[in-house]
Amino acid sequence: MSDIKEITEELIKFRNDRDWAQFHDTKNLAVAISIEASELNEIFLWKDSKESELSDKEKIKEELADIFAYSFLLAEKHGFDVKEIVLDKIKKNNEKYPVEKARGTSKKYTEL
Amino acid sequence: MSDIKEITEELIKFRNDRDWAQFHDTKNLAVAISIEASELNEIFLWKDSKESELSDKEKIKEELADIFAYSFLLAEKHGFDVKEIVLDKIKKNNEKYPVEKARGTSKKYTEL
Amino acid sequence: MSDIKEITEELIKFRNDRDWAQFHDTKNLAVAISIEASELNEIFLWKDSKESELSDKEKIKEELADIFAYSFLLAEKHGFDVKEIVLDKIKKNNEKYPVEKARGTSKKYTEL
Amino acid sequence: MSDIKEITEELIKFRNDRDWAQFHDTKNLAVAISIEASELNEIFLWKDSKESELSDKEKIKEELADIFAYSFLLAEKHGFDVKEIVLDKIKKNNEKYPVEKARGTSKKYTEL
Repeated sequence: MSDIKEITEELIKFRNDRDWAQFHDTKNLAVAISIEASELNEIFLWKDSKESELSDKEKIKEELADIFAYSFLLAEKHGFDVKEIVLDKIKKNNEKYPVEKARGTSKKYTEL
Repeated sequence: MSDIKEITEELIKFRNDRDWAQFHDTKNLAVAISIEASELNEIFLWKDSKESELSDKEKIKEELADIFAYSFLLAEKHGFDVKEIVLDKIKKNNEKYPVEKARGTSKKYTEL
Repeated sequence: MSDIKEITEELIKFRNDRDWAQFHDTKNLAVAISIEASELNEIFLWKDSKESELSDKEKIKEELADIFAYSFLLAEKHGFDVKEIVLDKIKKNNEKYPVEKARGTSKKYTEL
Repeated sequence: MSDIKEITEELIKFRNDRDWAQFHDTKNLAVAISIEASELNEIFLWKDSKESELSDKEKIKEELADIFAYSFLLAEKHGFDVKEIVLDKIKKNNEKYPVEKARGTSKKYTEL
């Protein structure tokens, strides 16, 4: 079984054991991802880039795990293959951000 | 090779081809995840739960793919094994949300 | 003195008493607003629209106050007149969302 | 009339002219604030602190105006007096962050 399938099955089991599918509609899962992303950001709030790199690894792990958890659940809900959607997005970004134009700059594709 | 390893290698290749590692510090990647999460939420803004389920699947795929992309890159940057951190978090949540108390309720563990 | 000026002066006093201007650069204040907005959203997580309306008013007050606090501080930092920037935005939105087209629909202006 | 009352009345007029109160439930307004906060953050994405200060002022104004707009609408919906809730929060923070402990540090009150 693939890693992603295995993780997803564990998440589904955890959810179903608690009868939580009823709360996990698409809109709520999207809000949940956003909240977890903010909790990740809170670790680095008021810190500069260097200090951020030295932040508590365990906290980063936990918040990032929460983001992944809700993201895998949302993907499963819609029947998305995570590998496929990420590789598809990379393909699109390859066109939006051609190497020769995007190299070494953080500009948005609309400004390249 | 595992799914996650394969996705991550493609993301790293995309990033390195553009010399973008210089922008991808921990703090910036965390902000990027948060911004992509908001773009996902924008798809459902002003819609109720039912309408949200009927939203454009292609848009959901793309925004979710962006969230995954930055999350995999952040995990890789810190040497986290995504499967491990998510399964570890499930274990912790099993203790915070015991089935008998959490079943059928959306209350936070602090209120159970 | 105007309400907004009075609020802003209190916020500046609080900040200066603690010598916190050094942390309040534009980027950090923007992240802070985003984090407080997520804390507001957390009050309503997993709740439907009706339940959300019945949420703890004191919590809503506190999170909304935090959003206002960082927003007023960011406005002050850049010398923005809050009344002016909001009224200017309403004018722009009057053009983007003409009444006859936008009435009763939640569509984005790009789809009207 | 106070500044805040004047701004709020203009926002209510804009909203009512379009019959949008039906979409502005508490949960949706909270999500809207969060989305606008992310759009503000996007201006500074991948930029360091110094570059962020040099960002396009007009863009900052517009995104900040959006955050204020939805925040004033949410306050009005719940009958909150913005000045009162912000000054109340400053009082609470005066206790959570006593000057002698909080001076010059960005630590959270739980770590002071």
